[in-house]
Amino acid sequence: MPDQAVTLDDIRRASDALAGQVVRTPYLASRTLSAISGADVRLKFESQQFTGSFKDRGALNRLLALSEEQRKSGVIAMSAGNHAQGVAYHAGRLGIPATIVMPRGTPYVKVENTEVLGATIILEGQTVEEAYAFAEQHGQRHSLTFVHPYDDAQVIAGQGTIGLEILEDDPDVEMIVAPIGGGGLISGISVAVKAVRPTVEVIGVQAAAYPSMYAAIKGTAPTGAETTIADGITVKAAGTLTRKLIAALVEDIFLVSEEQIERAILLFLEIEKAVTEGAGATPLAALLAHPEYFSGRRVALVVSGANIDPRLLSSVILSGLVRGGRMTRLRIILPDRPGMLSQVSALIGEAEANILDVHHDRAFTGLPVKSANLDVTLETRNAAHIELVRCRLVEAGFDARPLPVEAGISG
Amino acid sequence: MPDQAVTLDDIRRASDALAGQVVRTPYLASRTLSAISGADVRLKFESQQFTGSFKDRGALNRLLALSEEQRKSGVIAMSAGNHAQGVAYHAGRLGIPATIVMPRGTPYVKVENTEVLGATIILEGQTVEEAYAFAEQHGQRHSLTFVHPYDDAQVIAGQGTIGLEILEDDPDVEMIVAPIGGGGLISGISVAVKAVRPTVEVIGVQAAAYPSMYAAIKGTAPTGAETTIADGITVKAAGTLTRKLIAALVEDIFLVSEEQIERAILLFLEIEKAVTEGAGATPLAALLAHPEYFSGRRVALVVSGANIDPRLLSSVILSGLVRGGRMTRLRIILPDRPGMLSQVSALIGEAEANILDVHHDRAFTGLPVKSANLDVTLETRNAAHIELVRCRLVEAGFDARPLPVEAGISG
Repeated sequence: MPDQAVTLDDIRRASDALAGQVVRTPYLASRTLSAISGADVRLKFESQQFTGSFKDRGALNRLLALSEEQRKSGVIAMSAGNHAQGVAYHAGRLGIPATIVMPRGTPYVKVENTEVLGATIILEGQTVEEAYAFAEQHGQRHSLTFVHPYDDAQVIAGQGTIGLEILEDDPDVEMIVAPIGGGGLISGISVAVKAVRPTVEVIGVQAAAYPSMYAAIKGTAPTGAETTIADGITVKAAGTLTRKLIAALVEDIFLVSEEQIERAILLFLEIEKAVTEGAGATPLAALLAHPEYFSGRRVALVVSGANIDPRLLSSVILSGLVRGGRMTRLRIILPDRPGMLSQVSALIGEAEANILDVHHDRAFTGLPVKSANLDVTLETRNAAHIELVRCRLVEAGFDARPLPVEAGISG
Repeated sequence: MPDQAVTLDDIRRASDALAGQVVRTPYLASRTLSAISGADVRLKFESQQFTGSFKDRGALNRLLALSEEQRKSGVIAMSAGNHAQGVAYHAGRLGIPATIVMPRGTPYVKVENTEVLGATIILEGQTVEEAYAFAEQHGQRHSLTFVHPYDDAQVIAGQGTIGLEILEDDPDVEMIVAPIGGGGLISGISVAVKAVRPTVEVIGVQAAAYPSMYAAIKGTAPTGAETTIADGITVKAAGTLTRKLIAALVEDIFLVSEEQIERAILLFLEIEKAVTEGAGATPLAALLAHPEYFSGRRVALVVSGANIDPRLLSSVILSGLVRGGRMTRLRIILPDRPGMLSQVSALIGEAEANILDVHHDRAFTGLPVKSANLDVTLETRNAAHIELVRCRLVEAGFDARPLPVEAGISG
């Protein structure tokens, strides 16, 4: 590819330019994730960049390429997420005025997270597309250089430095797995990797709910973009530069479900003691969804970021516990006689489940007047344990059935 | 102290013995925690040990000191937590049979976490004291060497290797802050530090709910031990060896409240993207509680462990959001007329708060029949924003007041 938009030389130059200004992030083996997956798993913790994602690299590389005049006039970007923070932080460090456009209705916490880094925030447009259009116009009108989140050679070269670091830290790596949103991250990595060590495979991952690049590359029908917990990679249209690079250099793209992503976030939390955002967890989700593909190979997972809303993280934890049978809610129909609640509690205790929450409802149940619903939330061991508890109750004459539990379970 | 039970030489020997068998944990600066606290903050991530806490060091050092015969017979320990995992894991690695005694009623997940590491678990005793007594007897009967969690020279020397690593990594450190449970961790660290660089201050932290060593050292009345989120340091009686070392070598002990510990856990999660257990967060809690003491100094915080129950972590996240005004619940008394709910929703939306959950209760309110309680859970910006939303509702004629929110808020 002699006319390739980004080359190894660009990435090497980026690497020199970024040195000392971004974190050379840890690259660590995970014994437990290796045991679970059957692959030899290494983790590249880009979540340890100062703004919590790999975006620092591309943003800074783009800013360092500005002319003196462009620096003085300033830059503009459209993003409510990691790209916004990467641009705002490094522009602030370098004394470059930065304007960030976010769609109206962006959660306040996202506005605040970027504002504290010193950028000017403009809320404009009902949709991401409208905000984007506004940012381009506003930038032209005020001579601000537009910093594209992924479809830009300097940005791609910046992200590519991750590939060089992995190769440097791990002479034996066989596969690198990275999330795809717009595709800047994986484009940069694959340019670096295929130039230096072409036998290393590069695999992309998208949320099944938002498979834009997958559709563009595989020629499948673009499915409707749904909401996904991997909000860092919800990009509707594949980039032009990135699409070309990915088509040429990336081995395959896997799609992962919301449940698989949530499970991966929880594994990072419980095993690696690390916070990971949805996008950052997709490589692990893909690894666990396709063990046959990765088994026995040395695989580097790019943990791209850790900027997850704490409330969302809390929901992921609780729904993970429910899914794993470690928490459940049973609805027990209780004859309205004295001592019933104590009998039920005793049965549950004997079955060694721990009662977390009790909700007793006599009204609006649609049951005969002499009955009541008792909803008990329990801490349990696994699905078999839940069934054991239920059977004990049924044997004692109670009607007991599991209730679907919302993520926001109380207790 | 010529008769000191543990010496620098013991710790240097431990350091050589442990090399390559425990993680040389990361020691990292935190720009944001430095900015928040006014100190120059460094973090020693002992939470990155394989079993998730510093206990690996002391346990392994003790095991390596066993005679060939003792190795064959095996070891016994009493712990449902980090010490159990440290002993079980390294005994398993070295092929030493390990028996771990836990009190009856220990949560299943704690039993499972130790069992998967290859130890034999015995559930015995209604209390920690009973379990401890059983473990000692059972050990004697079956010739198992008892591995004390802290009051043992080899264990203390193992934990002391943390002190050597901090001094090695940071020639400019001025203070080291570590949690105190039984006192093994801080004893080892202070022996190392005071021998190598005596000007470095060592500060201990205990949960105010469980101030056993504080009381022993300061001679205050031992207060009743309450439950604390820092369950890793709930030790009722100060050790004999450790008490002596701490009295001689530790500058001061601070007590921190449950709320301060919870806040510190949340800061680790949001800023460092790191999971931390209660005990591991106490040094940061102490730093933030006593800024005047640490301000302007280079301070190393020992993040001792990360084994926190995921459900508890989820509660900490949610109650932190509530405390920070980022989530709230308002009770609005609603005249029972059509359109009221939509009017309230509109007012809340105009005030730019996000509705997470609505609970509408007509029955059992004690209100006039023509009224109803509406409890709305909102995502808000801060306390001032909550007050703004409330004022908008009151100005429109609604009675609206904040409700205390349980940790297990739904949404």
